[in-house]
Amino acid sequence: VAELLIGDWGTTNLRVWRVSEAGAVVDRRDFPLGVARLGPGEAAARFEAEVRPALHAQGLPALLCGMIGSNLGWVAAPYLDCPVTLEEISRALVVATPQVRIAPGVRCDGIAGPEVMRGEETQVLGWLAGRPANSEGRQLICLPGTHTKWIAARDGRIVRFMTAMTGELFAVLSAHSLLRSDGRVRDADAFDQGVAAAGAGDALSTRLFSVRGRVLAGALAKASAASYLSGLLIGAEVASLVAHMAGDVTDCIHLVGEPNLCGWYERAFHSRGMVTTVIDGEAAAMTGLLAIWSKAR
Amino acid sequence: VAELLIGDWGTTNLRVWRVSEAGAVVDRRDFPLGVARLGPGEAAARFEAEVRPALHAQGLPALLCGMIGSNLGWVAAPYLDCPVTLEEISRALVVATPQVRIAPGVRCDGIAGPEVMRGEETQVLGWLAGRPANSEGRQLICLPGTHTKWIAARDGRIVRFMTAMTGELFAVLSAHSLLRSDGRVRDADAFDQGVAAAGAGDALSTRLFSVRGRVLAGALAKASAASYLSGLLIGAEVASLVAHMAGDVTDCIHLVGEPNLCGWYERAFHSRGMVTTVIDGEAAAMTGLLAIWSKAR
Repeated sequence: VAELLIGDWGTTNLRVWRVSEAGAVVDRRDFPLGVARLGPGEAAARFEAEVRPALHAQGLPALLCGMIGSNLGWVAAPYLDCPVTLEEISRALVVATPQVRIAPGVRCDGIAGPEVMRGEETQVLGWLAGRPANSEGRQLICLPGTHTKWIAARDGRIVRFMTAMTGELFAVLSAHSLLRSDGRVRDADAFDQGVAAAGAGDALSTRLFSVRGRVLAGALAKASAASYLSGLLIGAEVASLVAHMAGDVTDCIHLVGEPNLCGWYERAFHSRGMVTTVIDGEAAAMTGLLAIWSKAR
Repeated sequence: VAELLIGDWGTTNLRVWRVSEAGAVVDRRDFPLGVARLGPGEAAARFEAEVRPALHAQGLPALLCGMIGSNLGWVAAPYLDCPVTLEEISRALVVATPQVRIAPGVRCDGIAGPEVMRGEETQVLGWLAGRPANSEGRQLICLPGTHTKWIAARDGRIVRFMTAMTGELFAVLSAHSLLRSDGRVRDADAFDQGVAAAGAGDALSTRLFSVRGRVLAGALAKASAASYLSGLLIGAEVASLVAHMAGDVTDCIHLVGEPNLCGWYERAFHSRGMVTTVIDGEAAAMTGLLAIWSKAR
């Protein structure tokens, strides 16, 4: 294997690793060049003019995953339908330039319409490929974030997934609604009360009003309202998606993401008696990109 | 009965009617003096300096309902607990000045915490008092709005109610999220698809992502995304609250509110085979205020 650039180019950020011939990471950079921040057709020029020089990587081959493969990115890389393997992704890379390949995203049928993702599949397939045991039987991986993904795998392939806009709901309600607050989640008791108030995850727009009702009744401190709201939203997501993914829920849920947020998700899972582990998303993404690259050649 | 001012003083608006000795409305005005727009302690001065002169109503007794009785209003009028009758409201009026009385709001236990309302109870009790048949047996009244209320009545009293923040969710998602749009709902087919995609009303944060998934898949026109989103949110509310108010759901649901919005709610009810009527909220509010006043004397 020659020297290589691999990158996860998302909506808000681009992370690039330069990998040596021996497969070791020799450099790693973040760029505020997320797809949402790029003008039309700008990706190629910014990559060549800013990213390559910063990593001293002129002329190296590059493999990118994430939103850069959307129609707002560099070159559109059509979605692959579930079930999907790492090998299938490797065979579907799209050529952006002679030196740059882009990995496709993944699609499946959801409960209310098509589900799509770009980037998360690389992390999950990387983690599945990282240890032989991970590719045996069923796994359920939850990636908390603005748009949390729940991804079910069987025997090393992604079989289906679901998205929950929980993080975005928390952000817009905390910034712009009757429930506005500083958005800081730090009261574990209030969070737990929110998880309990989420019930079976139905009637969310009614349960949300309980933030207001409890504050008015003196049952919830205003400073703890954001924690209660977070518990309510995450609790409703966990209750709903555990039910909808029932056939794919495993003994231990694997979490990938920002550690503080993963901790709150763990709390919600634990309140239902479920077991969790947190796995390293950066290592998973790198493993996934390297494995896709090695199988593509 | 002497001449009288009656008013519904809400969060964004104040509507006042001047009623003759014979009980006829002789004047009606709206003022942009909603409680959210008033400084602390400002209500009394604005009422005396702006409202009374506009209606040539110096010195007349006045009865007000709505958010003006909250701790952000004029004088706090503590909530009455359900079940509540019009007579109990009449006996609990709070004296703001020798000439001004304020009606209390109503509270009950909800599915996720305390439920509260101020103003809607007056409309519902007014409608119940308006015709003898309305006070017989069970009635379910739905008041669509920013915070939609579902109010169950039995034998002329309000027995319980629920709130859904559906209108506010639609507004903040349309203005500030990935699902942003012009917020104009006009595609009935897309609305119906949203209602169908709402399912049983669970997993709302996942179903919301289907707006995005359908647009990406070419299954939903961008110009119709607001209509689909409205159907999804109203459909989830209707599915959830019909289930949670099962014991109080009646053969015919009575709707009160802005006609266009009521029409979309009717569409969601009809998709479940339910029957609806639209009732006149302004007449109901006036009837309620006059009945409260007559029983208070």
